Amino acid sequence: MARQRRGQESRERILQVAEMCFAQDGYDATGVARICRQAGMSKGAFYHHFASKQAVFIELLNRWLDRLDAQFAAIRAEAQSVPESFARMTEVIGYILDDAGGQLPIFLEFLNQARREPAVWEATIAPYRRYRDYFSEMIAEGIAEGSLQQVDPDLTAGVLVSLAVGLLLQSLLDPQGADWGQVARAGIDVLVRNS
Amino acid sequence: MARQRRGQESRERILQVAEMCFAQDGYDATGVARICRQAGMSKGAFYHHFASKQAVFIELLNRWLDRLDAQFAAIRAEAQSVPESFARMTEVIGYILDDAGGQLPIFLEFLNQARREPAVWEATIAPYRRYRDYFSEMIAEGIAEGSLQQVDPDLTAGVLVSLAVGLLLQSLLDPQGADWGQVARAGIDVLVRNS
Repeated sequence: MARQRRGQESRERILQVAEMCFAQDGYDATGVARICRQAGMSKGAFYHHFASKQAVFIELLNRWLDRLDAQFAAIRAEAQSVPESFARMTEVIGYILDDAGGQLPIFLEFLNQARREPAVWEATIAPYRRYRDYFSEMIAEGIAEGSLQQVDPDLTAGVLVSLAVGLLLQSLLDPQGADWGQVARAGIDVLVRNS
Repeated sequence: MARQRRGQESRERILQVAEMCFAQDGYDATGVARICRQAGMSKGAFYHHFASKQAVFIELLNRWLDRLDAQFAAIRAEAQSVPESFARMTEVIGYILDDAGGQLPIFLEFLNQARREPAVWEATIAPYRRYRDYFSEMIAEGIAEGSLQQVDPDLTAGVLVSLAVGLLLQSLLDPQGADWGQVARAGIDVLVRNS
């Protein structure tokens, strides 16, 4: 059991160090050797936990999405209606957009990887599709409970996801260009309350 | 006059050749020497027309935006109401999204340049802000003519631009993932008709 726990700690340390290196120097400029040196471990230990640098990157993305999913699940469990869930999810998205400054390099590196590597492309596209299905199901629930008007749930959910993607890219490129959280609230208000 | 016309032709040839090279090989991999060789001209001739490869890139972006602006202006001149203008502009955006497949590399190169080069960043950010102002003015006109409900024109215009940016990025990343033109129509329908 102690050995298993140490293994878990090593895995966590690789992820933490890699996240810091990617943010500071970019994905391309960060080698496995660099991650191992900073984490104080051998390459053998690294490859025991991850098949490649890319696998670390995908794991970091998936963890970030897992935390977002957990927040969304807690909101849905507590909220009294679908519009209330959307309103509270928008607050979470607002915090993410406010914090996005400085993350443009890693976002672009990731898209570049997605373009070149099918595994990264899958990891990038899967969340878009998953959130579209998730919001579509919420919108259908809102229609059923009578809190939302009759709309096409899939199409409206697609619009919500595209708006979120656009807000993310704009807040990364131009953090000072607008109050992006406010734009998010305005958009989701119109899409969800008036839809 | 003949000399001036030849100068204009050289300038056009540089732009055409550069656009083709950027699309095929990417911005970074395309050097001025390559553009000159393909265009059959000297570096002296190139630098007579453009200060740098970056200046060619920005000129290509601005020309593309000029063509879009001309289409938008024609639509506004002909349409009978602001909602009709928005509906027809959405068709244009739908064609752009349908044609976007294969343009992801150049889009990412451009964002990477924007991150590193203030002149490219300005050229990237300025259109966002300009379109936000343009749509804000249209929404205010729609409210004044009674065809749109009372909304905050700036905020609603910001949402429209973010949606367009998100649709562009998603259609580049995942051309087959949805009928992006249809998502655009659904979004602008909700935002403009119900706003």
